[in-house]
Amino acid sequence: MEETLRLAERLHGGKPQLPLALRLIQNTGVQKRHIVRPLEETINHPGFEKRNQIYEYESKKRCPEVIDRALVNAGVAPADIDAIIYVSCTGFLMPSLTAWLINTMGFRFDTRQIPIAQLGCAAGGAAINRAYDFCAAHPEANVLIVSCELCSLCYQPVDDNIGSLLSDGLFGDAVAAAVMRGVGGVGVEVERHGSYLIPNTEDWISYAVRETGFHFQLDRRVPGTMEPLAPVLRELSAGHGWDVRDLDFYVIHAGGPRILDDLAKFLDVDREMFRHSWATLTEYGNIASAVVLDALRRLFEEKPPKIGATGLIAGFGPGITAEMALGRWAASKVTDSIRPKNTEPMTRKQVA
Amino acid sequence: MEETLRLAERLHGGKPQLPLALRLIQNTGVQKRHIVRPLEETINHPGFEKRNQIYEYESKKRCPEVIDRALVNAGVAPADIDAIIYVSCTGFLMPSLTAWLINTMGFRFDTRQIPIAQLGCAAGGAAINRAYDFCAAHPEANVLIVSCELCSLCYQPVDDNIGSLLSDGLFGDAVAAAVMRGVGGVGVEVERHGSYLIPNTEDWISYAVRETGFHFQLDRRVPGTMEPLAPVLRELSAGHGWDVRDLDFYVIHAGGPRILDDLAKFLDVDREMFRHSWATLTEYGNIASAVVLDALRRLFEEKPPKIGATGLIAGFGPGITAEMALGRWAASKVTDSIRPKNTEPMTRKQVA
Repeated sequence: MEETLRLAERLHGGKPQLPLALRLIQNTGVQKRHIVRPLEETINHPGFEKRNQIYEYESKKRCPEVIDRALVNAGVAPADIDAIIYVSCTGFLMPSLTAWLINTMGFRFDTRQIPIAQLGCAAGGAAINRAYDFCAAHPEANVLIVSCELCSLCYQPVDDNIGSLLSDGLFGDAVAAAVMRGVGGVGVEVERHGSYLIPNTEDWISYAVRETGFHFQLDRRVPGTMEPLAPVLRELSAGHGWDVRDLDFYVIHAGGPRILDDLAKFLDVDREMFRHSWATLTEYGNIASAVVLDALRRLFEEKPPKIGATGLIAGFGPGITAEMALGRWAASKVTDSIRPKNTEPMTRKQVA
Repeated sequence: MEETLRLAERLHGGKPQLPLALRLIQNTGVQKRHIVRPLEETINHPGFEKRNQIYEYESKKRCPEVIDRALVNAGVAPADIDAIIYVSCTGFLMPSLTAWLINTMGFRFDTRQIPIAQLGCAAGGAAINRAYDFCAAHPEANVLIVSCELCSLCYQPVDDNIGSLLSDGLFGDAVAAAVMRGVGGVGVEVERHGSYLIPNTEDWISYAVRETGFHFQLDRRVPGTMEPLAPVLRELSAGHGWDVRDLDFYVIHAGGPRILDDLAKFLDVDREMFRHSWATLTEYGNIASAVVLDALRRLFEEKPPKIGATGLIAGFGPGITAEMALGRWAASKVTDSIRPKNTEPMTRKQVA
């Protein structure tokens, strides 16, 4: 935080919007962020081509280790994975990194590749929901979710409006991975999911695509979006027979402090229930689509919920889009190995 | 074709690689292509930012009419659509065009958005397969597939290697849409699908991402990829109890003439069975992820297959990835309206 504030003063000293930007950055409560490159290198834009090459280099360097741990945690081997959902809005590769992962990490060559680049911060929730769909369509399948968000590679030195300066002080880099097992495992068993677009807010969060790459554009109305979204979350829960105020755990996108504060207020949920999201925000910043996966990791590492505990996962991002899932904490007796195929007709969808 | 050859001579006259490039372009058999902008404007690169703005303008101008026709053909209204799968590798918008479509065309605000940008020409097949997954996970759902490929907006004047010159003479622009109905409709009822990555071919079809946008890179080995893929298609069919030589219809990505010729040869299928793909290639060029949807349209417009006729859909693209589906021609008695929800337990997946 201190470094960020000093840097903002150094780079934008004297600009009339600076004092407000500094206050907004301080209000984020972000104490620490990780970035893939040294700070001085990060703030010097080397051109979009070079940036994207760095994205490719860093994603190949950093994803495998994270994926390995997700596979071990889920008790599956690469050959057990049937689909890879790769979400990332901070670099663009074609073919997607999924092809490289299959070629280098021992995944089967018939693994389905589902790369999603255009859902921004909502893509973490979307990835979980698409994994659910895949497991429902292919019982006993296992889906690997990878989120690789190197937000610092979208830093644009020339952008100095309030939204850009705030974003410069808010976003962090992260790689996260999870496995959804169709059968077995420990974690959230998704039971229902949904998506919602707030009408006519397309330009509230967007990229301008320029010669210099992706320019993140943040409208000042974004922090106020939890008021219209809270009723949507309430309704999704009610449709499932659950009271959104009384769930046992909440895995919420930490877009910023107002997002978390407002959502707690409008859902009538104790602020402390979002502690994992607050911790992600404080320790990593807004890590885009990786937030929900990191908040989920913290839920695992805390005393895990009881079997049958009810919970909500919600990602928010451009559109303005909410990607939401409801599920229960579950733990299969078969946690250390994959069941033989075709012996278990029950379909279960777990983020483990 | 004549215009393309003359243009290549005008732009690249005297270069040693030109004669081979001209022969390769002639061999494509592409007689006509459509491009969204006048030719002179297309060959002058206005910069990546402007190009992407043109992509946004043209996609918004051209997609709604095509989507309207797909909805009418499928007998569904916008409010009946539960998910939109939008595939396009020739422009990049965040949020995806899905948000704009929902806001402007009357889709429900809880419509799932599934944008895919990084599967290139294979994305048409992938969209069908993801629609199948969605319908299987959510019985009675309807999925809208939209492919918007404005390949001419990726023309790069400075690229003059053989692969680039050939591509300049091969790719065309197109917008295509289809609806997969979970219940009802007429069309291909998907029964099984699969994906396959040819090992270690990641750099055979790729984008270089530069200040000037996406630079399509085509390796000379790509036309030879049907030899390794034919056994994969054969095995997928055999696993379904079908002989790939004896299907009633084939909807194949028309990547180029050698792709279609070789696949017919290695599958031991009469070349005439790929007539819809040949027609797409001849009349539109390679229209990337839209090829399979256009070849499917031609199958509809010809005397349609008999109920129960068996067929294969296959898209090929970067990775090198094949996205394949097997299905039967089906026609529900309920074709002109959506059944009331929850009255029909049977799940059917149709591209209509």
